[in-house]
Amino acid sequence: MEINIQKRVLEANETQADTNRMFFKDQNVFVLNLMSSPGSGKTETLCKTLVRLMPRIRVGVIVGDICTTNDADRLDVTGAKVTQINTDQFGGDCHLAAHLIFSSARQLGCEDLDLLIVENIGNLVCPAEFDIGEDARAVMLSVTEGEDKPLKYPLMFRVADVAILNKIDLLPYLDVDIRLAKDNIQQVHPHLPVFEISAKTEEGFSPWLEWLNIKVFEKTGKGL
Amino acid sequence: MEINIQKRVLEANETQADTNRMFFKDQNVFVLNLMSSPGSGKTETLCKTLVRLMPRIRVGVIVGDICTTNDADRLDVTGAKVTQINTDQFGGDCHLAAHLIFSSARQLGCEDLDLLIVENIGNLVCPAEFDIGEDARAVMLSVTEGEDKPLKYPLMFRVADVAILNKIDLLPYLDVDIRLAKDNIQQVHPHLPVFEISAKTEEGFSPWLEWLNIKVFEKTGKGL
Repeated sequence: MEINIQKRVLEANETQADTNRMFFKDQNVFVLNLMSSPGSGKTETLCKTLVRLMPRIRVGVIVGDICTTNDADRLDVTGAKVTQINTDQFGGDCHLAAHLIFSSARQLGCEDLDLLIVENIGNLVCPAEFDIGEDARAVMLSVTEGEDKPLKYPLMFRVADVAILNKIDLLPYLDVDIRLAKDNIQQVHPHLPVFEISAKTEEGFSPWLEWLNIKVFEKTGKGL
Repeated sequence: MEINIQKRVLEANETQADTNRMFFKDQNVFVLNLMSSPGSGKTETLCKTLVRLMPRIRVGVIVGDICTTNDADRLDVTGAKVTQINTDQFGGDCHLAAHLIFSSARQLGCEDLDLLIVENIGNLVCPAEFDIGEDARAVMLSVTEGEDKPLKYPLMFRVADVAILNKIDLLPYLDVDIRLAKDNIQQVHPHLPVFEISAKTEEGFSPWLEWLNIKVFEKTGKGL
Protein backbone atom coordinates (compact mmCIF):
# COMPACT_ATOMS: atom_id res chain seq x y z
CA MET A 1 0.00 0.00 0.00
CA GLU A 2 2.78 2.39 1.01
CA ILE A 3 4.41 1.89 -2.38
CA ASN A 4 1.18 2.70 -4.28
CA ILE A 5 0.75 5.94 -2.34
CA GLN A 6 4.37 6.81 -3.06
CA LYS A 7 3.71 6.16 -6.76
CA ARG A 8 0.76 8.58 -6.82
CA VAL A 9 2.76 11.29 -5.05
CA LEU A 10 5.60 10.86 -7.56
CA GLU A 11 3.19 10.98 -10.53
CA ALA A 12 1.68 14.27 -9.31
CA ASN A 13 5.22 15.61 -8.86
CA GLU A 14 6.17 14.57 -12.39
CA THR A 15 3.26 16.52 -13.88
CA GLN A 16 4.34 19.66 -12.02
CA ALA A 17 7.96 19.06 -13.06
CA ASP A 18 6.87 19.12 -16.72
CA THR A 19 5.22 22.50 -16.09
CA ASN A 20 8.44 23.72 -14.45
CA ARG A 21 10.46 22.58 -17.48
CA MET A 22 8.26 24.62 -19.82
CA PHE A 23 8.50 27.63 -17.51
CA PHE A 24 12.30 27.41 -17.30
CA LYS A 25 12.49 27.07 -21.10
CA ASP A 26 10.30 30.15 -21.55
CA GLN A 27 12.52 32.06 -19.14
CA ASN A 28 15.69 30.85 -20.90
CA VAL A 29 17.29 29.86 -17.61
CA PHE A 30 19.43 26.79 -16.93
CA VAL A 31 18.43 24.97 -13.73
CA LEU A 32 20.87 22.89 -11.69
CA ASN A 33 19.63 20.68 -8.84
CA LEU A 34 22.45 20.20 -6.30
CA MET A 35 21.99 17.25 -3.93
CA SER A 36 24.07 15.59 -1.21
CA SER A 37 24.13 14.33 2.37
CA PRO A 38 24.01 16.90 5.17
CA GLY A 39 27.32 18.68 5.65
CA SER A 40 29.08 17.60 2.46
CA GLY A 41 29.75 21.24 1.55
CA LYS A 42 26.98 22.33 -0.85
CA THR A 43 26.69 25.87 0.49
CA GLU A 44 30.44 26.51 0.72
CA THR A 45 30.89 25.21 -2.84
CA LEU A 46 28.07 27.40 -4.11
CA CYS A 47 29.48 30.51 -2.38
CA LYS A 48 32.83 30.02 -4.11
CA THR A 49 31.19 29.02 -7.41
CA LEU A 50 28.89 32.07 -7.52
CA VAL A 51 31.67 34.57 -6.87
CA ARG A 52 33.62 33.17 -9.80
CA LEU A 53 30.66 32.82 -12.20
CA MET A 54 28.81 36.02 -11.56
CA PRO A 55 30.82 38.49 -13.50
CA ARG A 56 29.61 36.70 -16.63
CA ILE A 57 26.51 34.74 -15.62
CA ARG A 58 23.49 36.03 -13.69
CA VAL A 59 22.73 33.50 -10.96
CA GLY A 60 19.82 32.86 -8.62
CA VAL A 61 19.63 30.27 -5.84
CA ILE A 62 16.72 28.48 -4.20
CA VAL A 63 17.91 27.06 -0.88
CA GLY A 64 16.00 24.20 0.71
CA ASP A 65 16.21 23.52 4.40
CA ILE A 66 13.93 21.98 6.97
CA CYS A 67 14.77 24.73 9.45
CA THR A 68 16.95 27.87 9.67
CA THR A 69 17.99 30.39 7.02
CA ASN A 70 21.73 29.80 7.68
CA ASP A 71 22.57 28.70 4.14
CA ALA A 72 20.54 31.45 2.47
CA ASP A 73 22.27 34.02 4.69
CA ARG A 74 25.69 32.69 3.68
CA LEU A 75 24.77 32.77 -0.02
CA ASP A 76 23.21 36.23 0.22
CA VAL A 77 26.59 37.92 0.66
CA THR A 78 27.70 36.67 -2.79
CA GLY A 79 25.26 39.14 -4.37
CA ALA A 80 23.23 36.40 -6.08
CA LYS A 81 19.43 36.49 -5.89
CA VAL A 82 18.59 34.04 -3.11
CA THR A 83 15.31 32.66 -1.79
CA GLN A 84 14.71 30.13 0.95
CA ILE A 85 12.25 27.24 1.24
CA ASN A 86 11.74 25.88 4.74
CA THR A 87 9.96 22.54 4.58
CA ASP A 88 9.20 22.53 8.31
CA GLN A 89 5.74 23.96 7.55
CA PHE A 90 5.11 21.02 5.15
CA GLY A 91 5.77 18.39 7.82
CA GLY A 92 9.57 18.65 7.70
CA ASP A 93 9.76 17.29 4.16
CA CYS A 94 12.98 15.48 3.31
CA HIS A 95 13.10 16.73 -0.29
CA LEU A 96 12.03 19.70 -2.42
CA ALA A 97 8.94 18.90 -4.47
CA ALA A 98 8.31 20.40 -7.92
CA HIS A 99 5.42 22.64 -6.78
CA LEU A 100 7.64 24.32 -4.15
CA ILE A 101 10.31 24.99 -6.80
CA PHE A 102 7.70 26.46 -9.15
CA SER A 103 6.36 28.95 -6.61
CA SER A 104 9.85 29.87 -5.36
CA ALA A 105 11.19 30.38 -8.88
CA ARG A 106 8.28 32.67 -9.74
CA GLN A 107 8.74 34.58 -6.49
CA LEU A 108 12.49 34.94 -7.12
CA GLY A 109 11.90 36.05 -10.72
CA CYS A 110 13.80 34.20 -13.45
CA GLU A 111 13.53 36.75 -16.27
CA ASP A 112 16.91 38.31 -15.42
CA LEU A 113 18.71 35.02 -14.64
CA ASP A 114 20.88 32.74 -16.78
CA LEU A 115 21.39 30.09 -14.13
CA LEU A 116 19.13 28.99 -11.28
CA ILE A 117 20.71 26.65 -8.73
CA VAL A 118 18.56 24.65 -6.33
CA GLU A 119 20.41 23.64 -3.19
CA ASN A 120 18.31 20.68 -2.12
CA ILE A 121 17.68 19.34 1.41
CA GLY A 122 20.70 17.48 2.80
CA ASN A 123 19.65 13.90 2.07
CA LEU A 124 21.29 11.33 -0.20
CA VAL A 125 18.08 9.33 -0.64
CA CYS A 126 14.72 11.08 -1.14
CA PRO A 127 15.59 14.10 -3.35
CA ALA A 128 16.77 11.67 -6.06
CA GLU A 129 13.16 10.55 -6.54
CA PHE A 130 11.71 14.02 -7.08
CA ASP A 131 12.05 15.57 -10.54
CA ILE A 132 11.84 19.36 -10.20
CA GLY A 133 12.05 20.12 -13.94
CA GLU A 134 15.77 20.83 -13.73
CA ASP A 135 18.19 20.71 -16.68
CA ALA A 136 20.91 18.87 -14.76
CA ARG A 137 21.42 17.12 -11.45
CA ALA A 138 24.66 17.36 -9.51
CA VAL A 139 25.42 14.98 -6.65
CA MET A 140 28.07 16.05 -4.17
CA LEU A 141 29.90 13.58 -1.94
CA SER A 142 32.35 14.61 0.74
CA VAL A 143 35.34 12.27 0.73
CA THR A 144 34.91 12.06 4.52
CA GLU A 145 31.73 10.04 3.89
CA GLY A 146 33.70 7.08 2.54
CA GLU A 147 34.25 5.49 -0.84
CA ASP A 148 31.32 3.04 -0.68
CA LYS A 149 28.48 5.58 -0.76
CA PRO A 150 27.80 5.37 -4.54
CA LEU A 151 27.12 1.64 -4.12
CA LYS A 152 24.94 2.15 -1.05
CA TYR A 153 22.91 5.06 -2.45
CA PRO A 154 22.93 4.15 -6.15
CA LEU A 155 19.77 5.98 -7.26
CA MET A 156 21.27 9.38 -6.45
CA PHE A 157 24.36 8.64 -8.55
CA ARG A 158 22.29 7.01 -11.31
CA VAL A 159 20.08 10.09 -11.83
CA ALA A 160 23.00 12.54 -11.62
CA ASP A 161 24.53 14.32 -14.63
CA VAL A 162 27.68 15.20 -12.74
CA ALA A 163 29.33 14.17 -9.47
CA ILE A 164 31.48 16.39 -7.26
CA LEU A 165 33.87 14.87 -4.73
CA ASN A 166 34.44 17.59 -2.12
CA LYS A 167 36.86 18.14 0.79
CA ILE A 168 39.85 16.60 -1.00
CA ASP A 169 42.05 18.79 1.24
CA LEU A 170 41.24 16.27 4.01
CA LEU A 171 42.44 13.21 2.07
CA PRO A 172 45.85 13.07 3.81
CA TYR A 173 44.05 12.59 7.15
CA LEU A 174 41.51 9.96 6.01
CA ASP A 175 41.63 6.22 5.31
CA VAL A 176 39.71 6.84 2.10
CA ASP A 177 40.74 5.66 -1.37
CA ILE A 178 39.46 8.31 -3.78
CA ARG A 179 40.25 6.11 -6.78
CA LEU A 180 37.91 3.47 -5.35
CA ALA A 181 35.24 6.14 -4.76
CA LYS A 182 35.49 7.11 -8.43
CA ASP A 183 35.43 3.47 -9.56
CA ASN A 184 32.28 2.94 -7.49
CA ILE A 185 30.64 5.96 -9.14
CA GLN A 186 31.51 4.60 -12.59
CA GLN A 187 30.16 1.18 -11.61
CA VAL A 188 26.76 2.72 -10.79
CA HIS A 189 26.82 5.30 -13.61
CA PRO A 190 29.39 4.66 -16.35
CA HIS A 191 30.95 7.78 -17.91
CA LEU A 192 29.47 10.18 -15.34
CA PRO A 193 31.76 13.25 -15.17
CA VAL A 194 33.39 13.48 -11.73
CA PHE A 195 35.16 16.56 -10.40
CA GLU A 196 37.45 16.47 -7.37
CA ILE A 197 37.39 19.74 -5.47
CA SER A 198 38.06 21.42 -2.15
CA ALA A 199 35.51 24.14 -1.46
CA LYS A 200 37.85 25.32 1.30
CA THR A 201 40.99 25.81 -0.84
CA GLU A 202 39.20 26.07 -4.25
CA GLU A 203 41.50 23.36 -5.58
CA GLY A 204 39.97 21.71 -8.66
CA PHE A 205 37.39 24.46 -9.27
CA SER A 206 38.33 25.30 -12.86
CA PRO A 207 37.09 22.09 -14.56
CA TRP A 208 33.87 22.19 -12.52
CA LEU A 209 33.22 25.84 -13.43
CA GLU A 210 33.98 25.09 -17.06
CA TRP A 211 31.48 22.20 -17.11
CA LEU A 212 28.79 24.45 -15.60
CA ASN A 213 29.63 27.34 -17.93
CA ILE A 214 29.28 25.12 -21.00
CA LYS A 215 25.97 23.68 -19.80
CA VAL A 216 24.52 27.16 -19.21
CA PHE A 217 25.76 28.32 -22.62
CA GLU A 218 24.35 25.29 -24.44
CA LYS A 219 20.83 26.05 -23.18
CA THR A 220 20.76 29.83 -22.91
CA GLY A 221 23.46 31.10 -25.27
CA LYS A 222 24.83 33.15 -22.37
CA GLY A 223 28.05 33.19 -20.44
CA LEU A 224 30.89 32.01 -22.68
CA MET B 1 -3.08 15.55 0.81
CA GLU B 2 0.50 14.42 0.99
CA ILE B 3 0.57 15.26 4.70
CA ASN B 4 -2.60 13.22 5.39
CA ILE B 5 -1.15 10.17 3.65
CA GLN B 6 2.05 10.59 5.63
CA LYS B 7 -0.03 10.74 8.82
CA ARG B 8 -1.76 7.43 8.04
CA VAL B 9 1.55 5.73 7.25
CA LEU B 10 2.99 6.98 10.55
CA GLU B 11 -0.07 5.81 12.52
CA ALA B 12 0.20 2.30 11.08
CA ASN B 13 3.91 2.33 11.94
CA GLU B 14 3.16 3.41 15.53
CA THR B 15 0.79 0.45 16.05
CA GLN B 16 3.49 -1.97 14.87
CA ALA B 17 6.07 -0.18 17.06
CA ASP B 18 3.89 -0.88 20.12
CA THR B 19 3.86 -4.57 19.17
CA ASN B 20 7.65 -4.47 18.83
CA ARG B 21 7.97 -2.87 22.28
CA MET B 22 5.98 -5.72 23.86
CA PHE B 23 8.04 -8.30 21.97
CA PHE B 24 11.35 -6.74 23.06
CA LYS B 25 10.10 -6.58 26.66
CA ASP B 26 9.13 -10.28 26.55
CA GLN B 27 12.56 -11.12 25.17
CA ASN B 28 14.27 -8.95 27.83
CA VAL B 29 16.44 -7.26 25.23
CA PHE B 30 17.45 -3.59 25.14
CA VAL B 31 17.03 -2.05 21.68
CA LEU B 32 19.12 0.90 20.47
CA ASN B 33 18.23 2.71 17.23
CA LEU B 34 21.39 4.32 15.79
CA MET B 35 20.78 7.05 13.22
CA SER B 36 22.91 9.53 11.26
CA SER B 37 23.75 10.97 7.85
CA PRO B 38 25.53 8.71 5.34
CA GLY B 39 29.19 8.24 6.15
CA SER B 40 29.24 9.66 9.67
CA GLY B 41 30.79 6.45 11.00
CA LYS B 42 27.96 4.30 12.37
CA THR B 43 29.42 0.98 11.23
CA GLU B 44 32.97 1.71 12.35
CA THR B 45 31.70 2.87 15.75
CA LEU B 46 29.58 -0.27 16.11
CA CYS B 47 32.49 -2.55 15.17
CA LYS B 48 34.65 -1.02 17.92
CA THR B 49 31.73 -0.90 20.38
CA LEU B 50 30.77 -4.55 19.90
CA VAL B 51 34.30 -5.87 20.40
CA ARG B 52 34.51 -4.05 23.72
CA LEU B 53 30.99 -4.93 24.93
CA MET B 54 30.74 -8.53 23.90
CA PRO B 55 32.69 -10.24 26.55
CA ARG B 56 29.94 -9.17 28.95
CA ILE B 57 26.88 -8.41 26.83
CA ARG B 58 25.35 -10.56 24.07
CA VAL B 59 24.74 -8.29 21.10
CA GLY B 60 22.79 -8.57 17.86
CA VAL B 61 22.66 -6.04 15.04
CA ILE B 62 20.06 -5.29 12.38
CA VAL B 63 21.73 -3.33 9.59
CA GLY B 64 19.61 -1.24 7.27
CA ASP B 65 20.82 -0.28 3.83
CA ILE B 66 19.16 0.52 0.55
CA CYS B 67 21.74 -1.58 -1.31
CA THR B 68 24.81 -3.73 -0.57
CA THR B 69 25.70 -5.90 2.43
CA ASN B 70 28.96 -3.99 3.05
CA ASP B 71 28.08 -2.90 6.58
CA ALA B 72 26.73 -6.29 7.62
CA ASP B 73 29.90 -7.93 6.30
CA ARG B 74 32.07 -5.54 8.35
CA LEU B 75 30.02 -6.20 11.49
CA ASP B 76 29.97 -9.94 10.95
CA VAL B 77 33.65 -10.30 11.82
CA THR B 78 33.00 -8.96 15.35
CA GLY B 79 31.20 -12.22 16.16
CA ALA B 80 27.88 -10.48 16.89
CA LYS B 81 24.67 -11.90 15.43
CA VAL B 82 24.04 -9.74 12.36
CA THR B 83 21.16 -9.52 9.92
CA GLN B 84 20.68 -7.20 6.97
CA ILE B 85 17.62 -5.35 5.67
CA ASN B 86 17.89 -4.03 2.11
CA THR B 87 15.10 -1.56 1.45
CA ASP B 88 15.74 -1.57 -2.30
CA GLN B 89 12.98 -4.17 -2.72
CA PHE B 90 10.56 -1.83 -0.88
CA GLY B 91 11.11 1.06 -3.30
CA GLY B 92 14.48 2.15 -1.86
CA ASP B 93 12.92 3.23 1.44
CA CYS B 94 14.78 6.00 3.22
CA HIS B 95 14.10 4.64 6.72
CA LEU B 96 13.49 1.35 8.53
CA ALA B 97 9.80 0.86 9.34
CA ALA B 98 8.61 -0.98 12.44
CA HIS B 99 7.29 -4.02 10.52
CA LEU B 100 10.71 -4.63 8.94
CA ILE B 101 12.35 -4.48 12.36
CA PHE B 102 9.81 -6.94 13.78
CA SER B 103 10.39 -9.58 11.09
CA SER B 104 14.17 -9.12 11.19
CA ALA B 105 14.32 -9.34 14.99
CA ARG B 106 12.31 -12.58 14.94
CA GLN B 107 14.51 -13.98 12.19
CA LEU B 108 17.67 -13.02 14.08
CA GLY B 109 16.32 -14.49 17.33
CA CYS B 110 16.38 -12.27 20.42
CA GLU B 111 16.09 -14.91 23.14
CA ASP B 112 19.87 -15.12 23.60
CA LEU B 113 20.53 -11.37 23.27
CA ASP B 114 20.87 -8.61 25.88
CA LEU B 115 21.29 -5.80 23.39
CA LEU B 116 19.90 -5.38 19.88
CA ILE B 117 21.32 -2.48 17.88
CA VAL B 118 19.57 -1.22 14.77
CA GLU B 119 21.91 0.60 12.39
CA ASN B 120 19.39 2.68 10.47
CA ILE B 121 19.59 3.94 6.86
CA GLY B 122 22.03 6.85 6.47
CA ASN B 123 19.59 9.76 6.58
CA LEU B 124 19.33 12.58 9.10
CA VAL B 125 15.68 13.28 8.27
CA CYS B 126 13.20 10.44 7.70
CA PRO B 127 14.28 7.79 10.25
CA ALA B 128 13.52 10.29 13.06
CA GLU B 129 9.82 10.02 12.20
CA PHE B 130 9.59 6.22 12.41
CA ASP B 131 9.26 4.68 15.87
CA ILE B 132 10.52 1.08 15.74
CA GLY B 133 9.69 0.21 19.34
CA GLU B 134 13.25 0.88 20.49
CA ASP B 135 14.30 1.66 24.07
CA ALA B 136 16.67 4.46 23.09
CA ARG B 137 17.64 6.48 20.06
CA ALA B 138 21.20 7.54 19.36
CA VAL B 139 22.01 10.21 16.80
CA MET B 140 25.55 10.32 15.46
CA LEU B 141 27.04 13.41 13.83
CA SER B 142 30.45 13.51 12.23
CA VAL B 143 32.22 16.75 13.12
CA THR B 144 33.07 17.03 9.40
CA GLU B 145 29.37 17.76 8.77
CA GLY B 146 29.58 21.13 10.51
CA GLU B 147 28.34 22.58 13.77
CA ASP B 148 24.97 23.84 12.44
CA LYS B 149 23.37 20.46 11.71
CA PRO B 150 21.41 20.15 15.00
CA LEU B 151 19.63 23.43 14.14
CA LYS B 152 18.97 22.38 10.54
CA TYR B 153 17.76 18.85 11.34
CA PRO B 154 16.19 19.48 14.75
CA LEU B 155 13.70 16.57 14.83
CA MET B 156 16.49 13.99 14.82
CA PHE B 157 18.18 15.63 17.79
CA ARG B 158 14.88 16.23 19.57
CA VAL B 159 13.86 12.55 19.49
CA ALA B 160 17.34 11.31 20.47
CA ASP B 161 18.26 9.99 23.92
CA VAL B 162 21.98 10.42 23.30
CA ALA B 163 24.17 12.17 20.73
CA ILE B 164 27.57 11.01 19.55
CA LEU B 165 29.99 13.43 17.88
CA ASN B 166 32.32 11.28 15.82
CA LYS B 167 35.63 11.79 13.95
CA ILE B 168 37.08 14.16 16.56
CA ASP B 169 40.54 13.05 15.34
CA LEU B 170 39.89 15.30 12.31
CA LEU B 171 39.19 18.46 14.36
CA PRO B 172 42.70 19.90 13.88
CA TYR B 173 42.11 19.94 10.11
CA LEU B 174 38.58 21.42 10.13
CA ASP B 175 37.13 24.90 10.60
CA VAL B 176 34.57 23.43 12.98
CA ASP B 177 33.85 24.67 16.49
CA ILE B 178 32.85 21.59 18.50
CA ARG B 179 31.74 23.73 21.44
CA LEU B 180 29.24 25.47 19.12
CA ALA B 181 28.07 22.08 17.82
CA LYS B 182 27.38 21.02 21.41
CA ASP B 183 25.64 24.32 22.20
CA ASN B 184 23.43 23.82 19.15
CA ILE B 185 22.51 20.32 20.33
CA GLN B 186 21.61 21.68 23.78
CA GLN B 187 19.55 24.44 22.18
CA VAL B 188 17.42 21.85 20.34
CA HIS B 189 17.41 19.29 23.16
CA PRO B 190 18.50 20.61 26.57
CA HIS B 191 20.41 18.15 28.79
CA LEU B 192 20.86 15.56 26.02
CA PRO B 193 23.98 13.51 26.85
CA VAL B 194 26.66 14.12 24.21
CA PHE B 195 29.76 11.94 23.75
CA GLU B 196 32.74 13.03 21.68
CA ILE B 197 34.51 10.08 20.09
CA SER B 198 36.82 8.97 17.33
CA ALA B 199 35.81 5.57 15.98
CA LYS B 200 39.21 5.48 14.28
CA THR B 201 41.39 6.00 17.38
CA GLU B 202 38.75 4.90 19.98
CA GLU B 203 39.33 8.15 21.85
CA GLY B 204 36.36 8.95 24.09
CA PHE B 205 34.88 5.44 23.94
CA SER B 206 34.76 4.74 27.69
CA PRO B 207 31.97 7.19 28.65
CA TRP B 208 29.90 6.10 25.62
CA LEU B 209 30.30 2.40 26.50
CA GLU B 210 29.47 3.13 30.12
CA TRP B 211 26.25 4.94 29.12
CA LEU B 212 25.22 1.99 26.94
CA ASN B 213 26.17 -0.56 29.59
CA ILE B 214 24.04 1.19 32.19
CA LYS B 215 21.04 1.43 29.85
CA VAL B 216 21.22 -2.29 29.04
CA PHE B 217 21.55 -3.15 32.72
CA GLU B 218 18.61 -0.94 33.75
CA LYS B 219 16.27 -2.82 31.42
CA THR B 220 17.64 -6.35 31.39
CA GLY B 221 19.62 -6.74 34.60
CA LYS B 222 22.54 -7.96 32.47
CA GLY B 223 26.03 -6.72 31.77
CA LEU B 224 27.31 -4.77 34.77
